[in-house]
Amino acid sequence: MTRTGAEVAGANGLLAEALARIARDIDEAFDQVLPLPQDARARLVEAMRYAAIGGGKRLRPLLLTATAEMYGVDRDAALRAGVAVEAIHVYSLIHDDLPCMDDDTLRHGKPTVHKAFGEATAVLAGDALHAFAFELLADPATSGDPFTRIELVAALGQASGFQGMAGGQMMDMVAEERVFDLQTVTRLQQLKTGALLGAAVEMGAILGHVPAEARSHLRGYARDIGLAFQIADDLIDHEGDEAVAGKALRKDMGAGKQTFVALLGPERARAQAGVLVDQAVAYLDRHGAEADLLRALARYIVERDR
Amino acid sequence: MTRTGAEVAGANGLLAEALARIARDIDEAFDQVLPLPQDARARLVEAMRYAAIGGGKRLRPLLLTATAEMYGVDRDAALRAGVAVEAIHVYSLIHDDLPCMDDDTLRHGKPTVHKAFGEATAVLAGDALHAFAFELLADPATSGDPFTRIELVAALGQASGFQGMAGGQMMDMVAEERVFDLQTVTRLQQLKTGALLGAAVEMGAILGHVPAEARSHLRGYARDIGLAFQIADDLIDHEGDEAVAGKALRKDMGAGKQTFVALLGPERARAQAGVLVDQAVAYLDRHGAEADLLRALARYIVERDR
Repeated sequence: MTRTGAEVAGANGLLAEALARIARDIDEAFDQVLPLPQDARARLVEAMRYAAIGGGKRLRPLLLTATAEMYGVDRDAALRAGVAVEAIHVYSLIHDDLPCMDDDTLRHGKPTVHKAFGEATAVLAGDALHAFAFELLADPATSGDPFTRIELVAALGQASGFQGMAGGQMMDMVAEERVFDLQTVTRLQQLKTGALLGAAVEMGAILGHVPAEARSHLRGYARDIGLAFQIADDLIDHEGDEAVAGKALRKDMGAGKQTFVALLGPERARAQAGVLVDQAVAYLDRHGAEADLLRALARYIVERDR
Repeated sequence: MTRTGAEVAGANGLLAEALARIARDIDEAFDQVLPLPQDARARLVEAMRYAAIGGGKRLRPLLLTATAEMYGVDRDAALRAGVAVEAIHVYSLIHDDLPCMDDDTLRHGKPTVHKAFGEATAVLAGDALHAFAFELLADPATSGDPFTRIELVAALGQASGFQGMAGGQMMDMVAEERVFDLQTVTRLQQLKTGALLGAAVEMGAILGHVPAEARSHLRGYARDIGLAFQIADDLIDHEGDEAVAGKALRKDMGAGKQTFVALLGPERARAQAGVLVDQAVAYLDRHGAEADLLRALARYIVERDR
């Protein structure tokens, strides 16, 4: 798919603005929904705020709000759901970074939560953000319609548990001991990263009251950008700049993991990511300009350097 | 409150039967809802099943089903909600037992999850059970009414997060470094243990469609048995038998924590637990024989030895 220079510039402007806006909005929302309690729980909420505020690309909330906006959903409602999906993402990063997991010391350019607050507080802060995500969705402020709220809970719960992210993380641990083929690595990544990215799009559609059977093109879009996202992550891990990424790189190779880059080589992996993005964008053909942000996001996902 | 020998024997029989039945039902339910997947996630689900099946008194599901039964709720629906609240309890035990938390090696008389499966799998198994609890509640099989389901999610989410269990656990960690007074220890325990026990009763009432404003006597009952439960736990930690308890004891004293027993002494603590149970039972005065199981449970909570 060829785009003119003006189209690329327009899409980049739209995306840059949306990325800046969602970063500001999600920071503000976390700041507002997580006030420091005046008792001995303060340290827990400090750790939650430290992890949740001021870092990350906020891709999941952006996918959610961009999808919701296509269907005319009120931005405040979409942002609350975006905070919930980001809370799940942030909790998973806190637990992933633990010494018994990936043992990372740096995240978004600052010390990881267990380095800054200790391991026990890091485990608890992750757990508390996990529960908080569902509390937020259950609150009538997210949607006045209980059916919409429970659909949001179902989508996020399934995407986070053993049928989604946690299941993918388990497969990722097993991948250090066993040789996986391309099909198994694809399945692993669909669960580990794809499920939550897909839930973000799905939750936008739920808020937009798009009937479940009419969401298949959005699911196709989400599935393809999910895999493209992971290939891009593998490429960043393989050849990126740690200072730009804000975290340690070159770890998967060291662990001998069968990533997309290890299985396909960097050139074929890059080409595959491009094909997936074109496929993802094609799923949006029924939409007009209102889907431009989702299109730009799909391209950004493989072109980013962190 | 004096009870005749026949009344005590009747209550004990009712309770013994209910305890045996809930233990069997919850084991069967976990077995059914957590089938082993035929892929690399198998180890994760094995760890979840190892922690969830075959151990524990199942007090929370029993409180939930006993409350639900008073209001004529279908037992299968109540059991599903009971599995959800127990999944939260089990995940909290897995994470509590981690080396960076309480570093326990024995739970329900068998090695803790991190001893049997490794720390990383233990963290993930806890996380996966946490998400699974909300998945279960969001499923229409729990209740055909979306408002009931979202009320269940709200009650469980609030009881587990920083406003409930996780907040209490943080206070408990701070209690190792700071001297708390009786009021602060009471608040700590209300969050750490009381919130989830209270949620179990609340969720039974939600399933029974008891209007929120009419649940205050059940909240009073739950609050008092929650504190009585914790005092009993402190007494077991102080003077119990490790073989009977199935876990390491005498730990709070070693850590210098301000428990109820440390603050009041064992005799006054025991008397206080008795007063709380009498108060809890008095909250049920408006109910007849249908509340006998909740009454027996209140007495059992302080008389148990594990």
